[in-house]
Amino acid sequence: MISYGIHALSIYTIFMPKSNLFRDIRTGKFKKIYLDYAASVEANPSSIHAVGLEAKKELENARVEVANVLGARSEEIIFTSGGTESNNLAIQGIVNAWELGSQKGAELPKLPHIITTNIEHPSVLETCKMFQKRKQAEISIVPVEENGIIDPKKIKKKIKANTVLVSVMYANNEIGTIQPIREIAREIKHYRKVSGKDSPSVAEGLSFPIFHTDAVQAANYLDINVQKLGVDLLSLSGSKIQKAGRVGILYKKKSTPLAAIFGGGHQEQGLRPGTENLPEILKFSKAFNSVQKNKEKESKRLTQLQNHFIKKIRKVSKVGLGTEIIINGDLENRLPSNINITFPKIPSDLLVIELSAKGVMVSPKSACKSLDSGGSYVIQAIHPELDPAVGGVRFSFGQGTTKADIDYTIKVLKQILLKLKKWYN
Amino acid sequence: MISYGIHALSIYTIFMPKSNLFRDIRTGKFKKIYLDYAASVEANPSSIHAVGLEAKKELENARVEVANVLGARSEEIIFTSGGTESNNLAIQGIVNAWELGSQKGAELPKLPHIITTNIEHPSVLETCKMFQKRKQAEISIVPVEENGIIDPKKIKKKIKANTVLVSVMYANNEIGTIQPIREIAREIKHYRKVSGKDSPSVAEGLSFPIFHTDAVQAANYLDINVQKLGVDLLSLSGSKIQKAGRVGILYKKKSTPLAAIFGGGHQEQGLRPGTENLPEILKFSKAFNSVQKNKEKESKRLTQLQNHFIKKIRKVSKVGLGTEIIINGDLENRLPSNINITFPKIPSDLLVIELSAKGVMVSPKSACKSLDSGGSYVIQAIHPELDPAVGGVRFSFGQGTTKADIDYTIKVLKQILLKLKKWYN
Repeated sequence: MISYGIHALSIYTIFMPKSNLFRDIRTGKFKKIYLDYAASVEANPSSIHAVGLEAKKELENARVEVANVLGARSEEIIFTSGGTESNNLAIQGIVNAWELGSQKGAELPKLPHIITTNIEHPSVLETCKMFQKRKQAEISIVPVEENGIIDPKKIKKKIKANTVLVSVMYANNEIGTIQPIREIAREIKHYRKVSGKDSPSVAEGLSFPIFHTDAVQAANYLDINVQKLGVDLLSLSGSKIQKAGRVGILYKKKSTPLAAIFGGGHQEQGLRPGTENLPEILKFSKAFNSVQKNKEKESKRLTQLQNHFIKKIRKVSKVGLGTEIIINGDLENRLPSNINITFPKIPSDLLVIELSAKGVMVSPKSACKSLDSGGSYVIQAIHPELDPAVGGVRFSFGQGTTKADIDYTIKVLKQILLKLKKWYN
Repeated sequence: MISYGIHALSIYTIFMPKSNLFRDIRTGKFKKIYLDYAASVEANPSSIHAVGLEAKKELENARVEVANVLGARSEEIIFTSGGTESNNLAIQGIVNAWELGSQKGAELPKLPHIITTNIEHPSVLETCKMFQKRKQAEISIVPVEENGIIDPKKIKKKIKANTVLVSVMYANNEIGTIQPIREIAREIKHYRKVSGKDSPSVAEGLSFPIFHTDAVQAANYLDINVQKLGVDLLSLSGSKIQKAGRVGILYKKKSTPLAAIFGGGHQEQGLRPGTENLPEILKFSKAFNSVQKNKEKESKRLTQLQNHFIKKIRKVSKVGLGTEIIINGDLENRLPSNINITFPKIPSDLLVIELSAKGVMVSPKSACKSLDSGGSYVIQAIHPELDPAVGGVRFSFGQGTTKADIDYTIKVLKQILLKLKKWYN
């Protein structure tokens, strides 16, 4: 067989004289005839011709840009289709890697154990429950405190020899509370170092438990440096960042074992096969860089709006309802973009529809759970005493949100509360 | 608990007087304030407010449009991130559904059996091999004939009581051969009806084996009516259709059991959780409709280019190489957009780079396998006698391809072959 690898080809391409390129007589431009439609109608970064290599360069530049923002290496960045896939790849990838390790004869306990919290996004919670149902994993769901924040000590207590993964979100999607990721990371590192020395996984040279954080809601406002956070896996989603395009990111620390969910091509080191979504990836790297650069300034702006909103809404609801509202989740450790309010006695769904009719779009719970009957499991986790139908109304801000928007929202909320008062009192 | 379902809310929204909407005094337009950034920076079809409902309507219209082209029902269309995911969902979804069925106490043989061919796309072949490696499935890989086409009788022979799935592609991505999907469907239906009556799966009321086709390469030129094809599952990818956007489709016949790969939200009937990629889905439905409407006309145009190319290239290679070229795959049953040629003695990678340097972008094998060492497994499947490094060069056409492109390609190919002649003779 003639040996002719891709590496040799790249060198060959570099040294090929440029005069070989055919210059169009009329336009003076180098001619490009694309006869690779079967690979992709757009440039495919996996093609080895000039157009493919150009696409590959753009893809790798985007990867470097994302890695730089995260304080990671470019080979630690995996592009996926979105946040749900990134969270699934993190969890399923670790369980699969553990199973493959077990099959290879490593002396690992058979049933892997995962620790998570009761307010994670459905793509984390449901994936854990799926493994539990299929008897492929043992799951510990640690409840958050009344302020919507997890106690790192309670996570620590649950770690045991077969714990492969701890998954705790950075900021909650419904109530905006920020979790103590750095503290949890410290507890896990301590376990690996001290208690873990007798653990079969550590004995096998594998650093379990792995620490994953779903940082989808944190991307716009919080520091996402993976070194400072001390995480091994971190998920991001373009759909929650202005202009970022519909892709997801999974940061995977180089030493972290991970097995792909999909079978297929070699893309993303084989960890995420499928033609890379280059146009959306390019949008992501640019937008993510931009929001992270402006996060302090934008956080400050939104915190002012948040304070203004809270002050006004407290006043309005006292007048409108004659009762105090509940602001869900810790008031200090929360995203500047999130206010989640329980209006006692009034179902959150009803308020969402009333506000929508007046042109204000808010949410009663995670959009990913909107079709499920029953209320928000996050609100129920922190306020089990409340009627689930009452739940909470989430007002979430972004780049386009202005003080005028807030003032208008307060104004119509007042009208709605006055209207509903006679129905409910 | 106050009963307040999503259904009641929709009715409430419909009957809500329009005058409730706040009209902007300056612009005269209805005011919209979006305070749901945490759901998505763009409209999220899962949100229950007006913007969300509008997005949901657009999403469902796109679903109906795709279903109409396929001759399917809209609830049979699942949107995914691409072809690789669609193929994985088809295969993994059936294996998972079988496993869940077994766990529920249905008397199914424990190890499911899958039949496929040796020229499938990596997202089918590697997924099957993944299950085999993990001992979760038994795999039969049926070889195609020398013309790159599968013999339906050979598929039929492999079907047995634990066969859950037969997966055969509609048109091959490397050599463009069209597979006899209707005939295979008939064999499977016959098995279910006659031999299958003693099969435990049929006895359980489940119609195994399920028939899946990867129609990714067929979308532009072939009839994709699922009724006529007789398939239960069919995959499509936007990245292979001009202007279609980066999404995938999995058609799933209503009666076909399927379990999700991802854990997460309720989107796509829970079979594909994650925020729907609405902008790309809208592009897909429009573009897919358009290419399917124009398929006869465009096929005719490309067949003329194909014939012209083949005639010219045969002449050129005789002069250039002094030998006959091999056109890989059946000459009749092939896509009008594909010509795959083996130039004896010349490594296909080298030709691809030489052509690229002259501005012509072609491919030596599937882009999804471009980084792997060794040649194309598809060419090896039909020509095991060839040096793997020689392989084949794929010229694949699309909407932008003109006769001038072909003539230019022939011209530079001639130059390249003459240049390489002295190296290789």
